[in-house]
Amino acid sequence: MYTIKTKIQLFNEAGNAFGPGKAQLLNAIAEFGSISAAAKSMGMSYKRAWDLVNAMNAGFQSALVVTKIGGSQGGGAEVTELGLKVLSLYQEATQKADTFISEQFVDLISLLK
Amino acid sequence: MYTIKTKIQLFNEAGNAFGPGKAQLLNAIAEFGSISAAAKSMGMSYKRAWDLVNAMNAGFQSALVVTKIGGSQGGGAEVTELGLKVLSLYQEATQKADTFISEQFVDLISLLK
Repeated sequence: MYTIKTKIQLFNEAGNAFGPGKAQLLNAIAEFGSISAAAKSMGMSYKRAWDLVNAMNAGFQSALVVTKIGGSQGGGAEVTELGLKVLSLYQEATQKADTFISEQFVDLISLLK
Repeated sequence: MYTIKTKIQLFNEAGNAFGPGKAQLLNAIAEFGSISAAAKSMGMSYKRAWDLVNAMNAGFQSALVVTKIGGSQGGGAEVTELGLKVLSLYQEATQKADTFISEQFVDLISLLK
C-alpha cells in the first residue's frame, strides 16, 4: 500500500498567495460564516486565521472574505463570490492534478517494496 | 508574476518512501560518487544522508545506492541501475506534473492581483 501526497502552492511577489491551508480556511469560513469558528475548527489561532484572510484579500483582485459588523448574529464573515470562485477553481485544479499524478507515478510506485 | 510550487511525495507503510529530498540526494550521489560529498553539496549532515539512503534502500525492491569499500579512491558510493531508473521515472513524472499543473491553474492565477 502506498499513498501520494501532493502540495500545490501559488506564490506572487508578496510570498505565498494561495495553497492548501488558505483553501481549507476559506472553505471553513464558508461553512461556519465566522472566522473565529473556522479557525477553531482547524485548531488554528484567531490571529493566524486573520493573517491568512488579510493575505488572501490583499493577494487577489478583490477581497475573498468580508466581515459583517453587528446584526442579530453579532457579526460574522462571508466568503465573497470571488472567494467561492477561487475555492472552486483550486479544488477542481487540485483534484485533476491528483488524478494526473497518480497515473504518472504508476511505474515508479511499482518499484516500491 | 507568480510561481507554482509543487511537492509530490510517495508514502508506504513505513512512512515517506520517496520525494524531492531523496531525489536530490540520489542525484547528488550519482554526480559525486560519494555519500559524504553529496551530503556536503546539499548542506546536509552525513548522518541525515545515510538515514535517507537506508530508508530508500529499504523502501524499494532492491537497493538504490551501494557503497564500495576500499580501492584506490578509498571507497565511495554508487547509484544502482534501479536507483537510476527510480530517479529518471521521478524526474519525468514530476516534470509532466508541473506542466499539467501550470495549465490547470491558469484560471485561478488570472484572479491574483
